[in-house]
Amino acid sequence: MENENKFEKLEPIRVKALDDILGIPFKVLDDGFVRVVDYLGSDQSIVQAARVSYGKGTKQISQDRGLIRYLLRHRHTTPFEMCEIKLHIRIPMDAWRQWIRHRTANVNEYSTRYSLAIESAQTTNPDQWRMQSTDNKQGSSGFFDSEIGSEMTADEKFIHDKTREIYNKRVAQGVAREQARKDLPLSTYTEAYWKIDLHNLLHFLELRMEKNAQLEIREYASTIGNEIVKRWAPIAWEAFEEYALNSKEFSRFELELLSLLANGKFEEAKSSAINYGWLNYKNDELTFNMERWEFENKMNDLKIQIPW
Amino acid sequence: MENENKFEKLEPIRVKALDDILGIPFKVLDDGFVRVVDYLGSDQSIVQAARVSYGKGTKQISQDRGLIRYLLRHRHTTPFEMCEIKLHIRIPMDAWRQWIRHRTANVNEYSTRYSLAIESAQTTNPDQWRMQSTDNKQGSSGFFDSEIGSEMTADEKFIHDKTREIYNKRVAQGVAREQARKDLPLSTYTEAYWKIDLHNLLHFLELRMEKNAQLEIREYASTIGNEIVKRWAPIAWEAFEEYALNSKEFSRFELELLSLLANGKFEEAKSSAINYGWLNYKNDELTFNMERWEFENKMNDLKIQIPW
Amino acid sequence: MENENKFEKLEPIRVKALDDILGIPFKVLDDGFVRVVDYLGSDQSIVQAARVSYGKGTKQISQDRGLIRYLLRHRHTTPFEMCEIKLHIRIPMDAWRQWIRHRTANVNEYSTRYSLAIESAQTTNPDQWRMQSTDNKQGSSGFFDSEIGSEMTADEKFIHDKTREIYNKRVAQGVAREQARKDLPLSTYTEAYWKIDLHNLLHFLELRMEKNAQLEIREYASTIGNEIVKRWAPIAWEAFEEYALNSKEFSRFELELLSLLANGKFEEAKSSAINYGWLNYKNDELTFNMERWEFENKMNDLKIQIPW
Amino acid sequence: MENENKFEKLEPIRVKALDDILGIPFKVLDDGFVRVVDYLGSDQSIVQAARVSYGKGTKQISQDRGLIRYLLRHRHTTPFEMCEIKLHIRIPMDAWRQWIRHRTANVNEYSTRYSLAIESAQTTNPDQWRMQSTDNKQGSSGFFDSEIGSEMTADEKFIHDKTREIYNKRVAQGVAREQARKDLPLSTYTEAYWKIDLHNLLHFLELRMEKNAQLEIREYASTIGNEIVKRWAPIAWEAFEEYALNSKEFSRFELELLSLLANGKFEEAKSSAINYGWLNYKNDELTFNMERWEFENKMNDLKIQIPW
Repeated sequence: MENENKFEKLEPIRVKALDDILGIPFKVLDDGFVRVVDYLGSDQSIVQAARVSYGKGTKQISQDRGLIRYLLRHRHTTPFEMCEIKLHIRIPMDAWRQWIRHRTANVNEYSTRYSLAIESAQTTNPDQWRMQSTDNKQGSSGFFDSEIGSEMTADEKFIHDKTREIYNKRVAQGVAREQARKDLPLSTYTEAYWKIDLHNLLHFLELRMEKNAQLEIREYASTIGNEIVKRWAPIAWEAFEEYALNSKEFSRFELELLSLLANGKFEEAKSSAINYGWLNYKNDELTFNMERWEFENKMNDLKIQIPW
Repeated sequence: MENENKFEKLEPIRVKALDDILGIPFKVLDDGFVRVVDYLGSDQSIVQAARVSYGKGTKQISQDRGLIRYLLRHRHTTPFEMCEIKLHIRIPMDAWRQWIRHRTANVNEYSTRYSLAIESAQTTNPDQWRMQSTDNKQGSSGFFDSEIGSEMTADEKFIHDKTREIYNKRVAQGVAREQARKDLPLSTYTEAYWKIDLHNLLHFLELRMEKNAQLEIREYASTIGNEIVKRWAPIAWEAFEEYALNSKEFSRFELELLSLLANGKFEEAKSSAINYGWLNYKNDELTFNMERWEFENKMNDLKIQIPW
Repeated sequence: MENENKFEKLEPIRVKALDDILGIPFKVLDDGFVRVVDYLGSDQSIVQAARVSYGKGTKQISQDRGLIRYLLRHRHTTPFEMCEIKLHIRIPMDAWRQWIRHRTANVNEYSTRYSLAIESAQTTNPDQWRMQSTDNKQGSSGFFDSEIGSEMTADEKFIHDKTREIYNKRVAQGVAREQARKDLPLSTYTEAYWKIDLHNLLHFLELRMEKNAQLEIREYASTIGNEIVKRWAPIAWEAFEEYALNSKEFSRFELELLSLLANGKFEEAKSSAINYGWLNYKNDELTFNMERWEFENKMNDLKIQIPW
Repeated sequence: MENENKFEKLEPIRVKALDDILGIPFKVLDDGFVRVVDYLGSDQSIVQAARVSYGKGTKQISQDRGLIRYLLRHRHTTPFEMCEIKLHIRIPMDAWRQWIRHRTANVNEYSTRYSLAIESAQTTNPDQWRMQSTDNKQGSSGFFDSEIGSEMTADEKFIHDKTREIYNKRVAQGVAREQARKDLPLSTYTEAYWKIDLHNLLHFLELRMEKNAQLEIREYASTIGNEIVKRWAPIAWEAFEEYALNSKEFSRFELELLSLLANGKFEEAKSSAINYGWLNYKNDELTFNMERWEFENKMNDLKIQIPW
């Protein structure tokens, strides 16, 4: 690091595509939004930070795009932490309960001890009621028809009206706000400032854009990813789509089978699977095995034939 | 550190007073509890960790109690991080929303996506309805009389029954649990395993045993402090009461005034307060100044006369 | 969660295989060690914590081994955070500088402000001097022969003796320890208590047992993994080896190529690679492309033929 | 929160006084520096975040300065987390070892595995050699005279030259950089990008500007405080000086004594101190008691007479 004391004055790094939408809310759900309040850094800052680590040594992988992809692929996460974004979010408390589990972020939430609760709860249209998934204990799949849905929506309106009425009555009578709120529905909207670095934001998005995440939080995550991060750090975003969102991991044993299958060694693969305990029969029928089932799904996606 | 390779086999550090209550729930609120699942370390571990840092140098302050008090008083927090406790908590979601804001802890919460919501919501007796505080925008003060309270309790029961009825109906019709729960009241009980180190636990207790904390979370915090930490690490707990729970901080200017007042220099103190902007009049009346008001409270507690 | 108030008294969870070695140091490098001071939890605690989240819903995946493997594979990391371990480590400061970058841990390090520096620095045998790797800018590969090595080892001894002599001289003259230490070599040993949860420990091991990690820290990591975690939580360890240590990730584009190659569509795969920018020629020679090279390595491991 | 969807486009918050020095290094020690690379937020952002929490309720304490002082005084720390700063630091590894113990920050450090070690080590002028403090086991007090100092400085130069010579020789022979560096002195300079939020930065400054902190890190901390934070967030800085840097905490028992002393009840205070165990005699001489001694120091600062 020669000339280390000969620094020039810096200008803040700004990203025009993001500055253009600063403060403008993106609508999410029936009455929620996400908007960017401010940010620090960009794709360029990732490179800048990596170059501090690598010193002069970095010339070989010196093209910015290649470097960012390399860093993301090899989980060199610290340069991504050098970018920070502050969002203003309006979200039902129910989804916020999931959101807040991500601990590496800064939060200021609207206080219903200090102020009156926001007068809005998430509503569901008749065609938006989701059925319990049978495969996935924690998911949903498919929608009710609108006729049944209409009744559900009517019940929802009834319960929203009643809980708000009782809340208002308590407040009017002078009950402490911290206690009056206790029976508001989980669907009540809250607001928060949420500040996070790009590495932790991408980790949040990887978990929350995933198909098993709950629809509500998935809509916030997709909006943040596609409308905000893509504008803010387009190269990092592209790498994230390539190496995280759309990648797949194969376990040690899956790699062993994959190698056999790709080389046409079907019998050997089958024996391995038997030895590994994946192919058990009960009354001549293959019993369910989750690890095997996940592997089969991967092979189907790769259009590789399964030998059992 | 001589003989550093001549270590003897260790036994786990156990605290009899805590082992005696392992797994036994302490009741909190109408239907909540806290119980200790397991723990690591004790007062003795704090000393053990401090002695690694200090090496041979520690002999001077070598009595355990003195050392623990010294560490706590001077915010040498890392030895307290060497103790860890795992609690099982049952708590209304509303209070849990505050709790979870403490980020330096490990959490596994009961999932109402995966399982049916716990069939219990926090109820309020007729004499437990609290009035909005007028001094403290986010607090409560005083209780409603039972007559008014009875009506409030009846409304509460109505809303609990209705929301549960609609929840049950949705589940029975096959609505996904993750969506069915959306209109449950914030008072619905949840459960969690919560694991935290002693330093961060004391920080939590300092904030949540404080008189301005909401009553509900304060009851959990007091139970954890007085029933659990006191048994687990009695010396650290005693020091915490002395140096954190019952201590007071004086600002630079407060120290200046305190010195003048303790030396009988009342006029000088008054002039200083005027110069500092604490004594402004409007229509011959002293206007409210929060910093001055907080100082006055401290002086009252010390029984020191205020010269204005 | 029926019967939630009918808890029985708990006994602490202890793991005999780990209790048997509590406090016993495992030697690492020439004069370092790792030993377990205490711990909280086990494989069983992972299951216990997961079951709080899943409530009654968990019966389907209820076998412990299957559940732990499922959790690890799907990065449900919070149950692993419910186990905690406290290690006592003796390590050269140089390796400790890398170690301490893992932030989610508790640390008490030996203080050379407070006490005299430990009188030991890491020494290198004549056959242990490593050559700079040419592929890997930050790695080593191969060893010098012992003849050259002997001279290097002699220089090392000279510098250790000299730096210690000057340190001792400063201390004897009364220089403050905090300043006297300033020219000790980075190879000087330090000691620390280090406490971390199992999830973060596995993450540490994944990064530090990896072949590109520096040899010194890799030896500590391997000792912790193979001697300690394997005894402590054998099921989690087996899953970690299967799904983390020996797994491989394929990017979106790698999956596309893999599917083509496994189905014998070599020409199509080649065209895709050309379009993707992986096959550029300069003077009729394929230019180096790191992403392509990493893919080729994966295909070689799977014994899949590369079509260019 | 009415009109919550009627947001106007925002401009990034910039602070002219800080923009004016962006990228300009402040020299620290003989060859170190700190410079601001970029930042997010300002005093205004603290207020903005607090107002999200307080909603409409905030009007009462609505003047910005009063609000910031209130937040800092009552440890409402989350609004301060909404400001973030990224610094570029050049610092001896010895001081960096202390620095890095602050875990809530993002770091990219210059890698001496990847690149050649920076060719500079911290040097000490003949008049800068500090004597070991006798009161404070971990501190220094007073300087050696220049004659003795000159010899120490000569030894320092010798050891710097020798260690660098051996480092260069190893590198020239092809030793891996990760191993070649092992005997460089702790005084060798390193560089890093360090990004942290304002709350955690103030906490760092409170610990590291303190008179017991080691001189080297104290100089960095003072520079960051007085040259950078003061420009960046002048109101928060002023409050920090008032409520943190120059405040004092009194324990429960100290408050009890203080009240007695300020009211002239000297005998009572003395009895209390006896009962509390502060006044023990050995051969007619008061034995040293650290808690008492710290209290006496506070009383001396307040010019309050001690009654024993």
